[in-house]
Amino acid sequence: MRISELSRRSGVATATIKYYLREGLLPPGRATAATQAEYGEVHVRRLRLIRALIGVRGLTVSAAKDVLDVVNEGKADTHELLGLVFGIRPPAEGDTPARAPDEAPGGGAGDVDALIAEMGWTVSEHNPARETLTQTLHTLNSLGMEYSWRTLLPYAALAEQTATLDLDQLQGPDDPLEKAERAVLLTVLLEPALLALRRLAQEAESTVRHRS
Amino acid sequence: MRISELSRRSGVATATIKYYLREGLLPPGRATAATQAEYGEVHVRRLRLIRALIGVRGLTVSAAKDVLDVVNEGKADTHELLGLVFGIRPPAEGDTPARAPDEAPGGGAGDVDALIAEMGWTVSEHNPARETLTQTLHTLNSLGMEYSWRTLLPYAALAEQTATLDLDQLQGPDDPLEKAERAVLLTVLLEPALLALRRLAQEAESTVRHRS
Repeated sequence: MRISELSRRSGVATATIKYYLREGLLPPGRATAATQAEYGEVHVRRLRLIRALIGVRGLTVSAAKDVLDVVNEGKADTHELLGLVFGIRPPAEGDTPARAPDEAPGGGAGDVDALIAEMGWTVSEHNPARETLTQTLHTLNSLGMEYSWRTLLPYAALAEQTATLDLDQLQGPDDPLEKAERAVLLTVLLEPALLALRRLAQEAESTVRHRS
Repeated sequence: MRISELSRRSGVATATIKYYLREGLLPPGRATAATQAEYGEVHVRRLRLIRALIGVRGLTVSAAKDVLDVVNEGKADTHELLGLVFGIRPPAEGDTPARAPDEAPGGGAGDVDALIAEMGWTVSEHNPARETLTQTLHTLNSLGMEYSWRTLLPYAALAEQTATLDLDQLQGPDDPLEKAERAVLLTVLLEPALLALRRLAQEAESTVRHRS
């Protein structure tokens, strides 16, 4: 199909499609003339994914490109794929550790190490979620909440059960591209839904306690 | 203390403090002269909270103001307070329903109703988390995932357990301002930490499955 038809089918404006092509978010079509290209179903599907990541999930164009690059790699290995989706960069030869040795003791990073050890989890030093947790603990404490990593342990146990559900759902498709797309959707797009469920459950639980 | 000292204590630039004062995020100090005011510990604490909401949590100034207005109301009633924090607007006299009757059937909103009914939750029609869930289901399905609300049920059960932990942690302080601050911090600021725990747990679970 021509770019005008691709625009109609995907609901994305032609100018925006051209922008995505220039930025490498969308693979080029098959050139049929100097200024014309032919696009296919893969482009329609990819545009829907881009819209989900940028429009729905609120990612920047650059962050969306990182995710799409992972999908493009078409890794059949779920473990490696999840690592890429989560931004876990495997350590390169002669790489310096992500964290300086003198940062660890006393700081929030040591607390997160303790939590991970207590849960018995094997987690890469390069998983950026470590930093998110460290920052949250630091922020809560700087606001005088005296919030310890031990308070997070019951939440970690529930997160473990959530992760089991997540990975069960990633079983299935053998096509690497489909598997990658599924991993992205079920991890990245499900995040706001999980927070929404927590807020609904909080209201429901609050209603129950309020009544009694 | 003068505004310069407040800036030093809180780590927020004087120009930014003046901006927060103009926007009503920070209550005015006690005027000591035509162009001078005296600030106290409450201002230091409030500035830390603003930094947490805007700098750490990434809220807009306007969204942060909404949250702070809730804190300012100093509601001692946790149920009402949580409603305000979550943006649940109580229906005004003669208010039209949030959703038009013809929107319900077939659409994602009906799916969320079904999920809430299945969980036995009492949740306001005005809880904005309903819309988030509806959108996520709609997005996943528009991407060809065939994702049903029933798939979310085990996640909802885990969210229920999370909410129980949340509300247990809100017990304690009797001071309405402290209680409001605690509710905001433990609900809003904890959100990225919960998602980070999920990502760590996913990596750990993936490692276990990968090995075997």
